[in-house]
Amino acid sequence: MPAMSAGRFTYAEAGVDVDANTLWVSRIRSAMQSTYGPRVASRHGAFAGLFRLDYDEELFRKNYRKPVLIGCSDGVGTKVLLAIEAGRLNTIGIDLVAMNVNDLITCGGEPLFFLDYLAVNKLDPQALLVVLEGIAAGCKQARCALLGGETAEMPDLYERGDLDLAGFAVGVVELHRIIDTSLVEPQDVLIGLPSSGVHSNGYTLVRRIIKSSKLKLHRHVESLGESLADALLRPTRIYVDAVHAVLSRYRRKRIVTAMAHITGGGLPENVGRAMPPNCDAVIDTSSWEPPPIFAFLQGFGVERDEMFRVFNMGIGYVFVARPDFVGGVLRHLRRAGEHPVVIGKVRRGAGRVVLR
Amino acid sequence: MPAMSAGRFTYAEAGVDVDANTLWVSRIRSAMQSTYGPRVASRHGAFAGLFRLDYDEELFRKNYRKPVLIGCSDGVGTKVLLAIEAGRLNTIGIDLVAMNVNDLITCGGEPLFFLDYLAVNKLDPQALLVVLEGIAAGCKQARCALLGGETAEMPDLYERGDLDLAGFAVGVVELHRIIDTSLVEPQDVLIGLPSSGVHSNGYTLVRRIIKSSKLKLHRHVESLGESLADALLRPTRIYVDAVHAVLSRYRRKRIVTAMAHITGGGLPENVGRAMPPNCDAVIDTSSWEPPPIFAFLQGFGVERDEMFRVFNMGIGYVFVARPDFVGGVLRHLRRAGEHPVVIGKVRRGAGRVVLR
Repeated sequence: MPAMSAGRFTYAEAGVDVDANTLWVSRIRSAMQSTYGPRVASRHGAFAGLFRLDYDEELFRKNYRKPVLIGCSDGVGTKVLLAIEAGRLNTIGIDLVAMNVNDLITCGGEPLFFLDYLAVNKLDPQALLVVLEGIAAGCKQARCALLGGETAEMPDLYERGDLDLAGFAVGVVELHRIIDTSLVEPQDVLIGLPSSGVHSNGYTLVRRIIKSSKLKLHRHVESLGESLADALLRPTRIYVDAVHAVLSRYRRKRIVTAMAHITGGGLPENVGRAMPPNCDAVIDTSSWEPPPIFAFLQGFGVERDEMFRVFNMGIGYVFVARPDFVGGVLRHLRRAGEHPVVIGKVRRGAGRVVLR
Repeated sequence: MPAMSAGRFTYAEAGVDVDANTLWVSRIRSAMQSTYGPRVASRHGAFAGLFRLDYDEELFRKNYRKPVLIGCSDGVGTKVLLAIEAGRLNTIGIDLVAMNVNDLITCGGEPLFFLDYLAVNKLDPQALLVVLEGIAAGCKQARCALLGGETAEMPDLYERGDLDLAGFAVGVVELHRIIDTSLVEPQDVLIGLPSSGVHSNGYTLVRRIIKSSKLKLHRHVESLGESLADALLRPTRIYVDAVHAVLSRYRRKRIVTAMAHITGGGLPENVGRAMPPNCDAVIDTSSWEPPPIFAFLQGFGVERDEMFRVFNMGIGYVFVARPDFVGGVLRHLRRAGEHPVVIGKVRRGAGRVVLR
């Protein structure tokens, strides 16, 4: 047995400050509460967050007959490292929410609540509060509640100043309204919604280019009309309102046959996930103009195929819609403030995506 | 503009291997499917996991009238680093599930599904599959489905061989059966369930002691009757069946007035979360025998108060129950294979926890 030397080891001395953690928990409360609607039934300090699926008070009646829950989990990849390097953490939380809720809505559901996981070397309440306020802002855009989360202080796993984020979104969809690939048919039309830029995928490659070419994040770039930090840290768009604007118009008819969130793997992989095994998607890449950041990155020496395999190339979300209703879908999207583009169509095939 | 040199940068060269990722996704499918019950409605390859809240086929009828969803998010802290150092990743996934579902059940609900987030330097499918099989084993213990997850390969954020895990659990509880602290009254009795050891909190301190005292993880320790690796990596207990054994017996009466999962902050903080502002919990620390690992760790020079503030000290989960029903609760727990201990009681007070 080792000799007794009371108090030699303490948790604080080992790098974990329980009191700072308690303070942090109280600081995040108001950011979380800013996202609460009447369906949140959580008590602060409880072990778990509570959310009423049905809320049948007079004004908010919303009952599901055969509710199917939707669960998603995603992070922002190494975009967070770029945000740290640029000293700009205020919108990485929007990216985190976007990555999750944009996946969630592809099956036709509504986001209900969100939980986050933040892992850091050392709690810096000021910096983390900025991150958390971004998450809350994203939740408001996605019309979901920030129901809870976990902040882990792990000095031995993360370098000083480093930060990782993961997120988790839960939603619901009525059983008979689930959108899955079985609805897709030849002649269906692909409608793309613009991305705001690189969104949250491909940043390991982006950062490699920046490092190899010694680019300065905050210097104005002529071809971009802004700095690299501005172009690369622009938050991922959240497509909840756009999807809602379309689906709420077609409650009976199955007009939208599939949807895809364009993330890692780009259009080929993600539109591919929305194709049934007997259909191909043919995408006309000249039908939209990618934001200048993509030509900028490609210019350092990335092949075109690789660009399309890694980046969204300007299209962040894709609807697959019945040909007779394309006009209506486009109109509803435009009314919701979107700039939709017809980018291709479905033909008989083998589950592939063909870029033209 | 930079000079064109097509193909100079690729995603693979930057450290991300998309094909390895695709292979990994196919490998995890069978581990996930081993946790699926009839309520899982997911399609493999979809953007999100689907779970039917109500399932009204004849044999599985289970309908909620006013369902309240429960969301939890947690990680395993630096226990994962100890598991990496010991070369033993097979049960860290059980810890991950335990940390989440044990929180989730404190409000009286049932776990439905789980999602994981794994972040690594580089995908090592063999090692990650071991982690994932542990997560699936934990989900089976917790009777919930492993509905999805995200594996992020981030060579710039994580050191070679490092790994972080976060988990998210979703459950449901009938509105009128939510357990919250408002039910607790003076004279209520505290019943503790044994932990299996350190569980998943306090590992930054544990690892500091190991490092400072140059302890060997795999050497047999006389006072423990096993190696440090065996004692410290024993998985966190999952209390889902124990809680179900009690709550399913008292569907009408409110016999259990609160529950607490003992994690970071130990008994003082976590039992404190289960106390209303007008009650204290008085815990008699002589009423149970902590596993020898705690005396072993304390022996290196940690004050007793600090031990109780950092570790569970042998009690992993606490029920607060009406005094007249303690015998019944103990009996139901014993029948479920538990070894419950009366560890204290509630008295009029101010929301504090008093250790005696």
